[in-house]
Amino acid sequence: MNTPKLVSFRVDGQDHYGLITDDGVIDLSSDFGGRFPTLREAIAAGALEELVEAGKSRTPTWSEDAVTYGIPVPNPARIICVGVNFPDRNAEYKDGSSQPKHMSLFPRFPSSFTGHNCPLIRPPENHTLDYEGEVVVVIGKGGRRIKAEDAYDHIAALTLCNEGTIRDWVRHAKFNVTQGKNWDKSGAIGPWMVPFTDPAQLDDAKIMTRVNGELRQEDELKNMMFPIREEIAYISTFTTLEPGDIIITGTPTGAGARFDPPKYLKPGDVVEVECPGIGILRNTVEDE
Amino acid sequence: MNTPKLVSFRVDGQDHYGLITDDGVIDLSSDFGGRFPTLREAIAAGALEELVEAGKSRTPTWSEDAVTYGIPVPNPARIICVGVNFPDRNAEYKDGSSQPKHMSLFPRFPSSFTGHNCPLIRPPENHTLDYEGEVVVVIGKGGRRIKAEDAYDHIAALTLCNEGTIRDWVRHAKFNVTQGKNWDKSGAIGPWMVPFTDPAQLDDAKIMTRVNGELRQEDELKNMMFPIREEIAYISTFTTLEPGDIIITGTPTGAGARFDPPKYLKPGDVVEVECPGIGILRNTVEDE
Repeated sequence: MNTPKLVSFRVDGQDHYGLITDDGVIDLSSDFGGRFPTLREAIAAGALEELVEAGKSRTPTWSEDAVTYGIPVPNPARIICVGVNFPDRNAEYKDGSSQPKHMSLFPRFPSSFTGHNCPLIRPPENHTLDYEGEVVVVIGKGGRRIKAEDAYDHIAALTLCNEGTIRDWVRHAKFNVTQGKNWDKSGAIGPWMVPFTDPAQLDDAKIMTRVNGELRQEDELKNMMFPIREEIAYISTFTTLEPGDIIITGTPTGAGARFDPPKYLKPGDVVEVECPGIGILRNTVEDE
Repeated sequence: MNTPKLVSFRVDGQDHYGLITDDGVIDLSSDFGGRFPTLREAIAAGALEELVEAGKSRTPTWSEDAVTYGIPVPNPARIICVGVNFPDRNAEYKDGSSQPKHMSLFPRFPSSFTGHNCPLIRPPENHTLDYEGEVVVVIGKGGRRIKAEDAYDHIAALTLCNEGTIRDWVRHAKFNVTQGKNWDKSGAIGPWMVPFTDPAQLDDAKIMTRVNGELRQEDELKNMMFPIREEIAYISTFTTLEPGDIIITGTPTGAGARFDPPKYLKPGDVVEVECPGIGILRNTVEDE
C-alpha cells in the first residue's frame, strides 16, 4: 500500500478534497463535505484515517492535471514559521555558542502561499525572491503547554513548504520579517498531506531543495537546533494550538541569499522541495 | 444622534452581534445572521450602515452587563500591528535621523485578544505583562497596492486595542516579537466598532492609556511617524487586504517597560485605552 496523499484542490471552480493516486484524483468531499467542509474539519475530527479508508474502495474522478492544487489545509488558524534552524555547515562552531537560546518565530498569512504546481509569484516591486525548503507539521490534536515528549501525539500529518521570501524586504524594518515573508503567493505548501503515524517519518527525514535540478539545500531533520518536539512545546506555551494549525519547521543553509553573488529566483525557474516519504513540492516562478 | 457602536458579543452561550446603546444591547444577528453570519461578512457586504439604520427602530434585548463582549470582528483574516510608531518625547531628535525608513510590522493571532470588560490574562510563565494603547482600523473594501491617498476609502470602522505584551518574551529571539505578542488573551480589542465616515475621526484623534486611573500614554495620531494612510499603502503592497482585516496602528511612548523600574501590570490593575469619538476599552488584569 502506498502512502496516502490527502489533497485539497480546485476543479471547475469548486473546492474539493480527496486523495491523489497514481491513477488520478479520488474525490472525497462530495461524500464527506457535509461532515467536513474542508480537510481542516476532518483533521479536527481525527478523521484522516477514515478518509483514507473510504478512498480505498473508490476510483479516481479526474486526472491529476485536471485539478489545481491548493494548500493542503485551506484556511489554517495559524501558520507559524521557525526561523534559521539548522547549523551553517560553512561556519565553524567550536563551543556551540552560536546556538540561540530560543527559536525565532514568525507567522505567515495563508495568502502568501500557493499550491503544488502553481506559479510562485515574483512581484514587480522587488526581484530578490528566494526559496527555503522546509518540512511542515499539521497539528491534529490542539492544546496548550504541550510537553515536548507528547508533541508527536499532536501531529496529524506532514507536508512540505517552499517558504518563499522577498529577501530585501525581510530587513526593511529593524525587527520582524513580516513584510518579506508575506507577499501574495510568494511561497508554496504541499504537494499533499501524508498522515503522521510513525516518529521515524520525522526523526529520520531529510529535506532537499533543488532549483532547475541543482541541489541547493540538503540536511537531515535530526540536525535541527530546535527539534520539532521543542517547537511544538515552545509555541504552545503562549498560544493554544488548534487542529489544522501549521508549523513550518525551519530551513537548512543554502538559500539563494547565501551565495555570492546571491542566486535569486527568476521567471521560469523550477523549485523542488523534497522529503522522501512525503513527496516533492514543485513550483515554477512567474513574474506577476 | 449618538455615534453607532457595533458590537460582537456572547450571551447564553451564543454568538451575536448588534448595537450598544445607553439603554442596552440591541440584537441584530437574529434578523441579519442569515445574510451576515458575523460582522465580518456585514463589513464585506458594505452593510454596516444598513445595520445601524435597522437598529434605530429596535429596542434593546439585554442590559449591557448581561452580555460578554467579543472582539468586534470575531475572526479577521489578518491582524497586523505596526511597531513603535510615535516619537519618544523624552529623546531629542535634532535631525530626524531616528525615523526608520520602513515601519515594523508583526501579526497577532485573534486568540491573543479578548473583548472589552473581559480579563487580561497574566500567565504563570512570566509576569512582565505590559499595556500598549492603540487605535485600530478595520478594513472595509479590500485591495492590493492601495494608494496612500485612497487609503481612507478602504476603512470601514474604528476600534481600540490594548496590544498587551509579555515584554520579556518580545526579545526571546534575535528577530521577531511573535512569542511576546501572542499569549492567549494577553491583549484586548474593542469595546465596539464605530463606522468610519469622516477623515477627522483619525486625523484629529488622540489616544490615551490609563492604568488604575493614572495616565501613562497620551499622544495625537497626527504625530505618528508612519500615518495610517501610509500603513495601508505599505501593507497592501505585499498582501491583499480583505474586508474585516485589522490594522493596529501603533502605540505612543509610555508603556510600562519604559519606566525605571518598569511598571508591569499585576492582577487587579484596570487598564483603559481611550480615544474620544471611539470609546473606552477597559480590562482588568487577572492571573491565569
